Amino acid sequence: MINIAIMGMGVVGGGLYDAVSQNKSLIMSVLGEELNIKYVLDKRKFPGHELENRVVSDINVILEDKDISVVAETMGGDRPAYDFSLACIKAGKSVVTSNKLVVEKYGRELEEAALQNNVCYLYEASAGGGIPLIHPLCHCLSANKITKVAGILNGTTNYILERMESDGISFEEALADAKRLGYAEVNPEADIKGYDTARKICILASVCFGSRFYLDDLAEITGIDQTESKHIIEAARLGYKIKLLGVAEVNEQGETLLFVKPCLVSKDSLLYGVNGVFNCVMVKGNLVGDVAFYGQGAGGLATASAVLSDIIEAIKLKTLPILKNNPFLIKKDINLQNSVDIYGINFPVI
Amino acid sequence: MINIAIMGMGVVGGGLYDAVSQNKSLIMSVLGEELNIKYVLDKRKFPGHELENRVVSDINVILEDKDISVVAETMGGDRPAYDFSLACIKAGKSVVTSNKLVVEKYGRELEEAALQNNVCYLYEASAGGGIPLIHPLCHCLSANKITKVAGILNGTTNYILERMESDGISFEEALADAKRLGYAEVNPEADIKGYDTARKICILASVCFGSRFYLDDLAEITGIDQTESKHIIEAARLGYKIKLLGVAEVNEQGETLLFVKPCLVSKDSLLYGVNGVFNCVMVKGNLVGDVAFYGQGAGGLATASAVLSDIIEAIKLKTLPILKNNPFLIKKDINLQNSVDIYGINFPVI
Repeated sequence: MINIAIMGMGVVGGGLYDAVSQNKSLIMSVLGEELNIKYVLDKRKFPGHELENRVVSDINVILEDKDISVVAETMGGDRPAYDFSLACIKAGKSVVTSNKLVVEKYGRELEEAALQNNVCYLYEASAGGGIPLIHPLCHCLSANKITKVAGILNGTTNYILERMESDGISFEEALADAKRLGYAEVNPEADIKGYDTARKICILASVCFGSRFYLDDLAEITGIDQTESKHIIEAARLGYKIKLLGVAEVNEQGETLLFVKPCLVSKDSLLYGVNGVFNCVMVKGNLVGDVAFYGQGAGGLATASAVLSDIIEAIKLKTLPILKNNPFLIKKDINLQNSVDIYGINFPVI
Repeated sequence: MINIAIMGMGVVGGGLYDAVSQNKSLIMSVLGEELNIKYVLDKRKFPGHELENRVVSDINVILEDKDISVVAETMGGDRPAYDFSLACIKAGKSVVTSNKLVVEKYGRELEEAALQNNVCYLYEASAGGGIPLIHPLCHCLSANKITKVAGILNGTTNYILERMESDGISFEEALADAKRLGYAEVNPEADIKGYDTARKICILASVCFGSRFYLDDLAEITGIDQTESKHIIEAARLGYKIKLLGVAEVNEQGETLLFVKPCLVSKDSLLYGVNGVFNCVMVKGNLVGDVAFYGQGAGGLATASAVLSDIIEAIKLKTLPILKNNPFLIKKDINLQNSVDIYGINFPVI
């Protein structure tokens, strides 16, 4: 029996519990033994829940239990998630996470600690939700020089833009609908102002380019809160859809450019057909050419699928962090060859 | 230094040589040591080629050299590719391949031999060309019950259908253009009659459902040679594109259905926008929902990217075959709820 702990029983932590229950025998056939959730770390109590007796509020219970080999950090927020993750790693436990905030800010530090302690630190679920993305980039495309990664990384804003376009409603109306349907949080600022996409493009650029990129490295972070119906109508007239994209590219001189901005996407692009809460990430490699990965970027079960794949990777493949430090000159001016001005706002064509 | 051998210096084998040359230092940084092509097995001589002195015509040279840990089989055809692969495995060498014919017919046998000999048998390049597909299905989605895999798996036929639709030309004209551009082989039967797609959907169904499926298990294999302009025009009028799809699904009773057939794809599907020689594979998992993988399904460098990722996996991750034998009842009648009759031909709507 393999014992794990879940830190944080929110949407993703709860989804992970559901996923482990639903696919119990399948997971057993993959691992060769049962996967058992021994502890759930949470301040709340969950009376009546099947896991009620396994809920602990003290991280030391997990740290001191030698039976726990893998810990899933699904807490959200940077502290104490970072501190608990580091403590688990130092206690010789692999950590897998869906926490983009921690991965963007402290990912390198946690990877270094993991390498020193001969354990895994994996974060498939931190960008692109359930889509197999980080692992294929690290392993399947590792022999490619990747020059560009760009995509729709936030389902909330993609849903809002789609509603504005298809139903001709205003940003405010579409946002209200997204909140009502549970697609947008009560405080949706991180989504609509582009910070969620920005953290994810930092994580993807770090993996693709073999370095570490942080929010401060972005040339621009613009969300969709200034996007009006008139922009969408004019873009459609020109044959485009407006999509909020995270973009990271590196040129032959080793200059990187990262930004988040509403962009124009043409009918020829796979991104044109990505609707609702789906995400899609395009990657350009010097051998493979253009490849893309598509799927649900959020949701409890879908994100849990990615966390679970990291748990299995930590147990079966035991892939230690590969710490690269390629030197890059970070550009801060977006001087794209192809962009269109619509009612005073500049939209890059991607 | 890690020494490998390439069996068969055709489009993919040549692409592998180019890829290893172009990305030499990157590959070294991934592996920690140099990747050296010590032998090329081929009947031809390649005078003047950089590898001229490494060309051998006797498989025993490779089998008897203890320095060779990985062999890339890029020969094509089932014999002697199968025999050579088995001999390499029995000699304790991992084998990676782009050969869909061998994987479909003898994949299970070679995986069993690999497991017995504690080496890898990997075939990322055998379906979907350069797209990271088999590895993500085996590793990233291994905790999902996969119920459906379907996609555009043959670039030649996708190019022909696209040309017929966009330029209003006949099948014969589009095929002639495809031949002229090198997208179709001189004898294009395996592509246009659907056998290439059929082999690939067998390989993908085997991986996704945890069993082994063969050409004989398909309920139908129909290519595009009976598809006429009038079908495409009428499909467009109804809001669809005709795409040649490989489809494999399993229902809750454990009944599987595999087929290859021109299908109708609506604007809402990601497959609608997949043009030219690109491939796209959609997968449905019970946790992750719908995910898709997109990229170039053929071409020397792109396919070599997948072969190279298998070589790296064989060296670094050493993932042994997982032999599953889930019991399935194979259905042979295509009784889809949703299909459209166009000029006497039945098109499933996917």
